[in-house]
Amino acid sequence: VGGPANGEVYTALAEMEELLETESVLITNLEGYIRVQEDKLNFLKNKMDEYQREHSDASHDITAYVSNPINAYLLTKRLTTDWRQVENLMEHDVGTDFLQNITQYRSLLKFPSDEDLNGAAVALLRLQDTYQLDTSSVARGKLNGIQYSTEMSSDDCFELGRQSYVNHDYYHTVLWMNEAMARMLEEPTNHTQSFTKADILEYLAFSTYKEGNIESALTMTNELLQLLPHHERANGNKRFYEKEIAQQLQLRKMKGDD
Amino acid sequence: VGGPANGEVYTALAEMEELLETESVLITNLEGYIRVQEDKLNFLKNKMDEYQREHSDASHDITAYVSNPINAYLLTKRLTTDWRQVENLMEHDVGTDFLQNITQYRSLLKFPSDEDLNGAAVALLRLQDTYQLDTSSVARGKLNGIQYSTEMSSDDCFELGRQSYVNHDYYHTVLWMNEAMARMLEEPTNHTQSFTKADILEYLAFSTYKEGNIESALTMTNELLQLLPHHERANGNKRFYEKEIAQQLQLRKMKGDD
Repeated sequence: VGGPANGEVYTALAEMEELLETESVLITNLEGYIRVQEDKLNFLKNKMDEYQREHSDASHDITAYVSNPINAYLLTKRLTTDWRQVENLMEHDVGTDFLQNITQYRSLLKFPSDEDLNGAAVALLRLQDTYQLDTSSVARGKLNGIQYSTEMSSDDCFELGRQSYVNHDYYHTVLWMNEAMARMLEEPTNHTQSFTKADILEYLAFSTYKEGNIESALTMTNELLQLLPHHERANGNKRFYEKEIAQQLQLRKMKGDD
Repeated sequence: VGGPANGEVYTALAEMEELLETESVLITNLEGYIRVQEDKLNFLKNKMDEYQREHSDASHDITAYVSNPINAYLLTKRLTTDWRQVENLMEHDVGTDFLQNITQYRSLLKFPSDEDLNGAAVALLRLQDTYQLDTSSVARGKLNGIQYSTEMSSDDCFELGRQSYVNHDYYHTVLWMNEAMARMLEEPTNHTQSFTKADILEYLAFSTYKEGNIESALTMTNELLQLLPHHERANGNKRFYEKEIAQQLQLRKMKGDD
């Protein structure tokens, strides 16, 4: 028991626990922000319902409506004192306190750095390699058939691919970008993705090229160009891959492989 | 048929119809504003649910949670790239286009002035006097038992009282402030009121005094001071009413009325 190795693990765990505390504070603040915004929206929705109801009443017989002195008073009031109230509330930013908290948290709470994120990604990929774990099993949070953690979203997989790419680890980039693509297609209602199919294709194509498969890289780049015909870098890459393929053909011919 | 009187009515009706068009534009803009704010809030709520779910999972066994490399990666990601996304959205004011529209509408659309509101209020009170209509019937939108318009809210009644007060018409102030009070008690869930019970009591007390009933004015002022003991003007009025009552007693004694 003890020893430096265990000590390091304990330090790392203590740091992770601190991050959970940070997260707890952020959640509470986000809850508060959502609550005041919802109160504001509910007030505005009530007002809108009232305006819509009155307005549709008026539209049935405009002349009859406006020649009625009660309606004339209510319409005039809606467009003077009532509307000013609505306008003021629309213009009033109710979330400022919570936004200020967020700024303060940056200096008060422990946040992981981008390096920490990279480190956590690498640790996970190392685990995958060591135990030769199937990518889609890891993504489903299942290790050797046991539910080991929550499922990863397509965004979580994309970020693992991106971190691998940053580390010039094209092997894992391809694995995780493919997984991100598969998961994305299973999440049609997820609108919180920070990336598009085109982004994945670009990472995949370049990493596949780096892994030595130029033909696949060209196929994926063409697929990307079907989505975004004017994508500048993809058009450049397409010309580059085509030239490379042509040169290799040439080389094989010269060697007499053909 | 024709004649200046009818011509004026037609002009007034045409102007009211224009106000209905203004209202229609304002409603559409308000709908748009509410829609983008709701989209933003729904995104943040989804994120919050995800954070809360993960966080409560973690809380069950913190050490087990953070020593799992998938969780460690996901937690680190939540507090780096994910949180930046949440933060950016929180700080991004999605309603600016609609707020800019509102500013433009002020010069592009026909809005009634405060004088128009006063005029509409006076026209309604004149109708009430001419046909000797009961205040609460008018407030319920019923004239001679027929549903003649929508019901007025306590706020609509309060504003009629306020307009009367501005015109030094203390008789109608008392009628409509009393009606506002009655309606307010019937609207416990209405949080869009622009006034408090204390506001009504202050208008009522002063108008009742102006109508010659100092004792009632003092009673209402005392009621107001129970709600707001440090209300400066009410404390001043209380001393004034008490002095007036004492002087009148003195006067009656001197005249030998006692």
